[in-house]
Amino acid sequence: MDGPGIVRIFDTTMRDGEQAARINLNTGEKVQIARALERLNVDIIEAGFPASSKGDMDAVINVAAEVRAPVIAGLARTKESDITAAGEALRGAARSRIHTFIATSAIHMEYKLKMTPGEVLKEIERGVSLARSIAEDVEFSAEDASRSDMDFLADAFTAAIESGASTLNIPDTVGYAMPYEFEDFCRTVIKRVNKPGVVWSVHCHNDLGLGVANSLAAVRAGVRQVECTINGLGERAGNASMEEIVMSLRTRKDHFGADTKIDTTKFYVTSKLVSGLTGVPVQPNKAIVGVNAFAHEAGIHQHGMLCNRATYEIMTPESVGAPGTDLHLGKHSGRHAFNERTEQLGYNLTPEQSASAFEYFKELCDKKKDVSDGDIEAFLLDRILRLTPEIRYELKDYAVTIGSGGKPTASITLAHDGGETTEAAVGNGPVDAAYKAILKILPFQPELAEFRIRATSELADAVGEAHVILRCKDIKAQGRGASTDIIEATMRAYLEAVNRLCSVAAAREVAM
Amino acid sequence: MDGPGIVRIFDTTMRDGEQAARINLNTGEKVQIARALERLNVDIIEAGFPASSKGDMDAVINVAAEVRAPVIAGLARTKESDITAAGEALRGAARSRIHTFIATSAIHMEYKLKMTPGEVLKEIERGVSLARSIAEDVEFSAEDASRSDMDFLADAFTAAIESGASTLNIPDTVGYAMPYEFEDFCRTVIKRVNKPGVVWSVHCHNDLGLGVANSLAAVRAGVRQVECTINGLGERAGNASMEEIVMSLRTRKDHFGADTKIDTTKFYVTSKLVSGLTGVPVQPNKAIVGVNAFAHEAGIHQHGMLCNRATYEIMTPESVGAPGTDLHLGKHSGRHAFNERTEQLGYNLTPEQSASAFEYFKELCDKKKDVSDGDIEAFLLDRILRLTPEIRYELKDYAVTIGSGGKPTASITLAHDGGETTEAAVGNGPVDAAYKAILKILPFQPELAEFRIRATSELADAVGEAHVILRCKDIKAQGRGASTDIIEATMRAYLEAVNRLCSVAAAREVAM
Repeated sequence: MDGPGIVRIFDTTMRDGEQAARINLNTGEKVQIARALERLNVDIIEAGFPASSKGDMDAVINVAAEVRAPVIAGLARTKESDITAAGEALRGAARSRIHTFIATSAIHMEYKLKMTPGEVLKEIERGVSLARSIAEDVEFSAEDASRSDMDFLADAFTAAIESGASTLNIPDTVGYAMPYEFEDFCRTVIKRVNKPGVVWSVHCHNDLGLGVANSLAAVRAGVRQVECTINGLGERAGNASMEEIVMSLRTRKDHFGADTKIDTTKFYVTSKLVSGLTGVPVQPNKAIVGVNAFAHEAGIHQHGMLCNRATYEIMTPESVGAPGTDLHLGKHSGRHAFNERTEQLGYNLTPEQSASAFEYFKELCDKKKDVSDGDIEAFLLDRILRLTPEIRYELKDYAVTIGSGGKPTASITLAHDGGETTEAAVGNGPVDAAYKAILKILPFQPELAEFRIRATSELADAVGEAHVILRCKDIKAQGRGASTDIIEATMRAYLEAVNRLCSVAAAREVAM
Repeated sequence: MDGPGIVRIFDTTMRDGEQAARINLNTGEKVQIARALERLNVDIIEAGFPASSKGDMDAVINVAAEVRAPVIAGLARTKESDITAAGEALRGAARSRIHTFIATSAIHMEYKLKMTPGEVLKEIERGVSLARSIAEDVEFSAEDASRSDMDFLADAFTAAIESGASTLNIPDTVGYAMPYEFEDFCRTVIKRVNKPGVVWSVHCHNDLGLGVANSLAAVRAGVRQVECTINGLGERAGNASMEEIVMSLRTRKDHFGADTKIDTTKFYVTSKLVSGLTGVPVQPNKAIVGVNAFAHEAGIHQHGMLCNRATYEIMTPESVGAPGTDLHLGKHSGRHAFNERTEQLGYNLTPEQSASAFEYFKELCDKKKDVSDGDIEAFLLDRILRLTPEIRYELKDYAVTIGSGGKPTASITLAHDGGETTEAAVGNGPVDAAYKAILKILPFQPELAEFRIRATSELADAVGEAHVILRCKDIKAQGRGASTDIIEATMRAYLEAVNRLCSVAAAREVAM
């Protein structure tokens, strides 16, 4: 049991965060993130919403099997089928929690649930009791709590506690609350319900930029669990950002008299891992984990920092694991240095993954002198960690020519169905030309729904990364590619998405 | 004179924001941003720190000459030369403000200023009096106020007011304050100083993610000016974000009893303009202006939104000018539709700029069917609005070949010094090959300090944008390029940076 000064960190990056990223993380990726969260020492990991899809179900099962220290939570509406699905997904967990929710605000009950308050109370009693018959540890969330009637909300929480819930969550679902009123609101709920021994929790969204402030306000009111995400991922403008909440509590322990058990030195690598796997970039001026968060640009500031770091620094970059400078590896770096570096970067590789990663690393060293952290991350994500779908279309050969003298031209050879096909096309740029050539080979014509490119470092021979999302017959699939040749990276990303489309279509028995 | 319910918005995007972006905005770019801020209806625009560089001096002069509705402010230390420089830069303004500052915290006074509190008070009296002899409107900031001794801080503000300052700013320079204590702190300062008729202001940084919450807390304490930036740009983790503060006040007028005069429907375009000109991306989950800020991804949320938008929406996308969907223009779009669109996108073009922009637009229409907002923005930024330096090296011809069969190869012809030179090189990718070929032609060897690429839309023939920063002999210069061919964009960016390096070197009389 944690003392009164400990705030539990409930991570929902893989549930609320993933829900918004427009990207489905696969099971292997979720396990990587869960391992990183375990190293951060979070208390609870919400691994998914098992009833929502087979992918979420599998992810929760796998995370529960492989990540043993934190509590693993699965989300469920109060519906019977949701709760039994969550229970099933969590069966293999060392410690499991069913997290069930229903809305309690007038507008949600009337328009979305189409239920009376009395019916909602009955749902809570039924759902929480059922959850409790399956799991020891049950959390109940009153969706849209901050816009709910106080009397009804207190009744709802009381019913949940009496039916067996031990963690009670007060979400600011739409990000509407202001810190002052949210602090009062939480204090009032806790006092009205008046049940010692339960843990109160909040879940704040960031629509007005106040997710972190509202979470901290709630801690002042006595809340001892905070739901949050890495990089503030989540629906719309996202959830409260874990790194900002934790560093506020740590830096201002004097003010809060409460702290978390988080190992803050793991924030930087965890942020990069989540950004890499979800493809959602972190803006440079993001607090704690943005690349500029510890950069002092103004002459006056630099002068001050040289006199005394405390003039402009309230926490050190080391405290959140931000690297002073990128360490670069090169062809003389051995297996040991390489493994150490991938570990420092937050990756947890199996011996087989390590071995193939080291081979790729050596190949890359032949191509470029310095291999940066960004390069390593790009190829780990592209070649080692992504569980690639069955390969139906494989890039065998390509040639692309661009120039001021003629139209960009690409010829592509793909292996598929036991043979090879070559096609050529011109386009408005090298990527367009290559994609048009690929489309001539494919028997179906997916639409490009998203297209992003980036360089992994400031070098001209940085590894280029491409993210592609394709859509075909209502199926969306993503692909990622990385190469020192950015055009090759875009082709790899496209083909990975094509292969994933085929796999999903086959699983759903949709003809492409 | 504004009523007691009006909070003045003081924008410092071009001063504190630019300072951190690692990018120097040129005068033309600053004028574009200032015009956009004028359309937003901000009260005060801090256009730069005139004493810090000739570029800042010029920018303030030009913004003051061209943007007439808001007050134009220039920053100055309490040094005589800083204040006279600010006065000179602001001479042509319709309404001007000198904003002078000195640190008041013990750590800043001892280690950075190396002055006693008594000496600092004298500096304040001298500096503010001098500023007031030059300008009617003087603002005084007590740097690191939130870590200053309350008695001394009250003395400092009293001295400033008695010397002629009418706006008094309380900065949380290092982003250390918590909303609850900052509200108390501001309330106490205001009460101690007790001078009716002055305007109190705050300037909050975001190191712990609380810049917006602290600004709002200060409004509750009676502060009636807030210093902030578009997209939360600024030193380190940035300043409080204007769009979040303004939308909090607007959405929760009931709570604050105060509002701003901002036209919030201009936020989206202003955010895109600032991001485009500074090259600092906005993360998708950024509140108010991120591309996902109004996206409802979860099935449950989408269902709720269909029943009643208010279930998950506390403000409409229209209220901040976020487009439902990108409008695409094409070859049948006429001059009128094009001009209307560039205006809607927040650009204010001269007739000549409009005419050449329309020509580029027509060229682009020949290359691609749909021209997206992102495409238009990319070429406006690349070809119309950037004041390009004198062109010493110009791209005449290029050809780049990549393929699985051989090394990426580039041949480049540059016009320079009245002749042309062609060189070829191989590299680890097409960009590396092209840059190596260019380096063979140049008589000096700049180092790549930053390299970024992105696609402007989700289409394969999107305009590709490249940002490059080169460094040579302590001179840094940026370049930007845009083209449907991403490789051409990287070459254009590189050469723009080369030409800028040459211009700066010539101005400083450094031999390259």
